[in-house]
Amino acid sequence: MNCKICKTKGIKKNAIVNLPSYNLSLCKEHFIEWFERRVQNTIKDFQMFTKEDRILVAVSGGKDSLGLWFVLNKLGYNADGIHIDLGINDYSKKSREYVEEFAKKIERKLYIVDLSTEIASISILKEKIPNKPPCSICGIIKRYYMNKISKKEGYNTLATGHNLDDEISVLFGNILNWNLDYLSKQYPILKEYENIFVRKVKPYCRITEKESALYTFLMGIKYIEQECPLSTGATSLKYKKILGDIEEQFPGTKLRFFNNFLRKFYPLLANKITEENLQRCKICNEPSSLEICAVCNIKMKLAKL
Amino acid sequence: MNCKICKTKGIKKNAIVNLPSYNLSLCKEHFIEWFERRVQNTIKDFQMFTKEDRILVAVSGGKDSLGLWFVLNKLGYNADGIHIDLGINDYSKKSREYVEEFAKKIERKLYIVDLSTEIASISILKEKIPNKPPCSICGIIKRYYMNKISKKEGYNTLATGHNLDDEISVLFGNILNWNLDYLSKQYPILKEYENIFVRKVKPYCRITEKESALYTFLMGIKYIEQECPLSTGATSLKYKKILGDIEEQFPGTKLRFFNNFLRKFYPLLANKITEENLQRCKICNEPSSLEICAVCNIKMKLAKL
Repeated sequence: MNCKICKTKGIKKNAIVNLPSYNLSLCKEHFIEWFERRVQNTIKDFQMFTKEDRILVAVSGGKDSLGLWFVLNKLGYNADGIHIDLGINDYSKKSREYVEEFAKKIERKLYIVDLSTEIASISILKEKIPNKPPCSICGIIKRYYMNKISKKEGYNTLATGHNLDDEISVLFGNILNWNLDYLSKQYPILKEYENIFVRKVKPYCRITEKESALYTFLMGIKYIEQECPLSTGATSLKYKKILGDIEEQFPGTKLRFFNNFLRKFYPLLANKITEENLQRCKICNEPSSLEICAVCNIKMKLAKL
Repeated sequence: MNCKICKTKGIKKNAIVNLPSYNLSLCKEHFIEWFERRVQNTIKDFQMFTKEDRILVAVSGGKDSLGLWFVLNKLGYNADGIHIDLGINDYSKKSREYVEEFAKKIERKLYIVDLSTEIASISILKEKIPNKPPCSICGIIKRYYMNKISKKEGYNTLATGHNLDDEISVLFGNILNWNLDYLSKQYPILKEYENIFVRKVKPYCRITEKESALYTFLMGIKYIEQECPLSTGATSLKYKKILGDIEEQFPGTKLRFFNNFLRKFYPLLANKITEENLQRCKICNEPSSLEICAVCNIKMKLAKL
């Protein structure tokens, strides 16, 4: 296969990637160009942020978050990083090393939250709170610290590397159960709310896992390839597999599913979104829907054990 | 496994079926009882019809429609049958034989529409109109004649044997594309509309394919087991397979997906339903959204060939 863009210029050049949902084959140079334009357009289409905003990127050490951190800076945005060290044995050690090394390389500020000293590692939490799935505990804690540190350090926008495959697998699960509350929050930008929540954005929401991995690889960024060892058997991974199979049979389905959700279905939910009964946690003063927030609750549970 | 109902009465009896989504194992007697109650409850919950209504059941000759025809009469409803002979070689011949034999057995009136004399067989239409999928042509024609004959013969309700698997595979496809127009019509009862449309109901909408097959088999009803030879490769069959795989991993998903669609999502669509720009076809006087209805259009196309 030849690059389609080169072909329009009368040049015959081998493509390195085929993107069936766009009916597009591209060489290295034009894939990079295409990818960066796609991220840029997503940021603009959803009015995620401008060059004046102070952005914090949630960096796990995987292909998506490191690639995102890189591309945002390359596109001229003002983006620092935050990494939550989950304390999951070797997996977390390696992840942190990749992130720290990369922060030095691109010379951007990096904030580290070490869960082992803040609360307890996810490995320990999994053991001590066996009735709650570790992915659920991990999600609660990550969201808490990312929001807290963003505010504390003066960032107004938190960017995460959720890609199209992540988004549609969650979407799919929420639709199987018609969980309208969750669906109403599944938008690529959630606006800041008073001094409580920073803005949350997902600039990779229209980038597939495969496209993201290729970009990060082509940029020569080293990242942790291993999936989190505690996520094996997670439902979202099963949904990813199912949606991947459908995409193979009907290229373009993933993107259409996501785009049409935003365009046709989301507006129906818009007037259903009720301001949550937001208050401040009595212990830590962070936002909470109950008197005591979920993280302080976990801390209290641990203390009682 | 023992029957759970027998067990409550202190009797140990082998179950013939396991229904994981209900966490229920049942013997023959209690399965039949459960099945008939489930159909009865569906009819009541959606206020589909009463014993005063004149019902016409669309009977293809398969397990669902023959079983439905049988159970409606067994439950005391006033239900005759209509069969569309599609003219698909041996498949249609056999289907018609099963239906005619069954009508005699239960001593109910049966209307036959023979497409070969009315328009042309689906096999011929498939050949002559190759740019339209045969399932789509077949659907248009069946809906047309069923509605027309129902009105002509004085029936106010048309019942079809669509089961839960049918419903959710269509639902799934419409959601992947967020086809709100189609979704807004996917309800187990569509009310009659003036003298244009008869009421349409799906009393099997909460019955799985497996449950339906078992009931028809246990009632000793002979039915055509072969799938329509023109439906191979149909997208809806692929979606059925996908949803079947999910159900196996997470029993109860199918039913939850369907019930919650009706309960949570459908109401959001309700105010989006616009009265279609309904008029009468200039040629046949049947309802149509255009000057000439889809069936007369097909007839005209054929005449020109």
